[in-house]
Amino acid sequence: MPNPIITLTTDYGTNDHLVGTIKGVILKINPDATIVDITHHVTPFDLLDGALAIGSAYSYFPSRTIHVVVVDPGVGTPRRPLLVTSETQYFVAPDNGVLSMIYERDPNVIVRYANVEHYYLQPVSNTFHGRDVFAPIAAWLSKSGQTAAMGEEITDYKKFAIPKPKAADGISKGVIMRVDAFGNLVTNFRGEDMGGANGNGGVAFKLGTHTVSHVVDTFASGNSGEPVAYIGSSGYVEIAVNKGNAAKTLAIGRGAPVTLEKN
Amino acid sequence: MPNPIITLTTDYGTNDHLVGTIKGVILKINPDATIVDITHHVTPFDLLDGALAIGSAYSYFPSRTIHVVVVDPGVGTPRRPLLVTSETQYFVAPDNGVLSMIYERDPNVIVRYANVEHYYLQPVSNTFHGRDVFAPIAAWLSKSGQTAAMGEEITDYKKFAIPKPKAADGISKGVIMRVDAFGNLVTNFRGEDMGGANGNGGVAFKLGTHTVSHVVDTFASGNSGEPVAYIGSSGYVEIAVNKGNAAKTLAIGRGAPVTLEKN
Amino acid sequence: MPNPIITLTTDYGTNDHLVGTIKGVILKINPDATIVDITHHVTPFDLLDGALAIGSAYSYFPSRTIHVVVVDPGVGTPRRPLLVTSETQYFVAPDNGVLSMIYERDPNVIVRYANVEHYYLQPVSNTFHGRDVFAPIAAWLSKSGQTAAMGEEITDYKKFAIPKPKAADGISKGVIMRVDAFGNLVTNFRGEDMGGANGNGGVAFKLGTHTVSHVVDTFASGNSGEPVAYIGSSGYVEIAVNKGNAAKTLAIGRGAPVTLEKN
Repeated sequence: MPNPIITLTTDYGTNDHLVGTIKGVILKINPDATIVDITHHVTPFDLLDGALAIGSAYSYFPSRTIHVVVVDPGVGTPRRPLLVTSETQYFVAPDNGVLSMIYERDPNVIVRYANVEHYYLQPVSNTFHGRDVFAPIAAWLSKSGQTAAMGEEITDYKKFAIPKPKAADGISKGVIMRVDAFGNLVTNFRGEDMGGANGNGGVAFKLGTHTVSHVVDTFASGNSGEPVAYIGSSGYVEIAVNKGNAAKTLAIGRGAPVTLEKN
Repeated sequence: MPNPIITLTTDYGTNDHLVGTIKGVILKINPDATIVDITHHVTPFDLLDGALAIGSAYSYFPSRTIHVVVVDPGVGTPRRPLLVTSETQYFVAPDNGVLSMIYERDPNVIVRYANVEHYYLQPVSNTFHGRDVFAPIAAWLSKSGQTAAMGEEITDYKKFAIPKPKAADGISKGVIMRVDAFGNLVTNFRGEDMGGANGNGGVAFKLGTHTVSHVVDTFASGNSGEPVAYIGSSGYVEIAVNKGNAAKTLAIGRGAPVTLEKN
Repeated sequence: MPNPIITLTTDYGTNDHLVGTIKGVILKINPDATIVDITHHVTPFDLLDGALAIGSAYSYFPSRTIHVVVVDPGVGTPRRPLLVTSETQYFVAPDNGVLSMIYERDPNVIVRYANVEHYYLQPVSNTFHGRDVFAPIAAWLSKSGQTAAMGEEITDYKKFAIPKPKAADGISKGVIMRVDAFGNLVTNFRGEDMGGANGNGGVAFKLGTHTVSHVVDTFASGNSGEPVAYIGSSGYVEIAVNKGNAAKTLAIGRGAPVTLEKN
């Protein structure tokens, strides 16, 4: 493969040598690989958070990019390593649902159980499959561009549904899926759930004791200190406080319920 | 451009997919680009902090490096994206003053309003211009090396003065501009403000209830636990505690006043 | 050197421009270098923590990789910069023992005092030798592949022993060497110190008021909330809580004593 790109999305953090070690493994197999960090700060063991991270980023990469996603609470147990081929890109990850957003967007993925140990780094440890299993698979794939030899196709891979809002009696119940680095609250409402409403009082989001009914184009349009709603860059409605931290100001975190009411 | 280098300086943090996504956008346009992170931990929305970060780093990069600087509290509002050509390097940033240290050091910069939407990633979101505007401009520039086609020259761009100490009655009043990762306090005094003083009691820095009169070559020359002053690697006087954290020990933070008196 | 790789291991953190600046210096000297971060979050000034980071990672990199290790509490004092050649790789670091794990594993290293200032970035600051001394040495080496011209061989370089457990009366006394990003406690016991024990109650680790006698293959095999012991990916015994944070749950940190008793 010319100009091979391998991305990394993990919950390893950057305090340890782990990410650097993985890059050494990749470069030892394929010195021509360009390695890109998406994030190493997925909430530890949080599969939804990992699914959202890779799901928000992958489509911006060139065709044939190989995405390694390691959020792996079951490392060392019999869960399977996967090699997934979507229409234009590749994914290497444990079979625990962390690729669910990829499956949801591309129903024609080919999923392989990457069980050909010839491509693993030996000896395989029990606790660091990012180094010993997932990185080597990605690096060998980046050299060959051939997936069929790396494992047999399966159909019983694990997936979970990204949580969708539930509507009843004119009220739609959603959830805060994550808090971003600015303290903005990412809901699971999509822009279309607001039905084209804007800052005219057509909708109200309620979370905790707060009601947010000012819908704007961008958080920068809010008055200082005022909570506002807008469609974020990944298509989800977000609640923010202009030049402030909504999570702290509203005392709301991941998993908190949020409702959408239309007037 | 051969060996094109694109650097990134943002306040995005590294907990989210944002930085990874930006890199995907760049590599999709120019797979030959080498991308270097300067820092993604500029204090959120803090233009002075961003100006100091890029201002301390850029001159160490090769000629024709393209620096993307995204500290952008006005994203989605009508503030302009800029493409700036200095004597040897390029800068892509919002028009909010975050490039003020560049303007201060190179009065001959050419500043263009990068309004040619042909170079943007479509559709342009309201909240993530790092991905949709600034990164694509940098990537296209790294391919062509041509700036004139990317926007018209302007002269009314925003800049602010990096704060300078003010002298009166033999006392010079400065400020702590930032706290670095070691807890060292970076003042806005330059080495020359001390008039060649060294550890002989010739000067005294006062901050909070503390007086620091031991001037050393390097923080490692201080006694354990003792606050000392020295000229830091960016040319500013810093206050540090050897093997300690001055910000915590002295309970002093960004924005605190500091005075310089000569005996 | 074809495909030159330079790695960075520092205690600089990533909040400042320091790491980005170092990369600029390297690329200005050798635009063909691939730069890999191992970690920049070594505990500040902690030589053992730095030694463990590079010692856990280096062997996974290709031959002729150049590892820059800057944990340097003595920067600006007369401690010497070193250029170390091991059997297959290179190391650039201050002479303070931070390469002790390399010396321990490869007794045939050639250690040079890299005092040829021709290879430094001038003027050399007193506080940022990562930028002015260590990075330029690595970059010039990556161009030439020649070490002999960069400094004279020495034998009186500093090293310290990685702490080993001490045995007496059937009890072996060890220590928590570090806490990783998941809160797992890395002891200085090696797998072989357990004598092949596994989950059958053959050994007991005591730390604080806690006794851990469940030995597993991987932390994922522990019951939820239960502290377990296993051999980590670097060969040291670790204490973890499955899907939890052992450091917080057990209130144990770096430097805490831990004993190993066999039944």
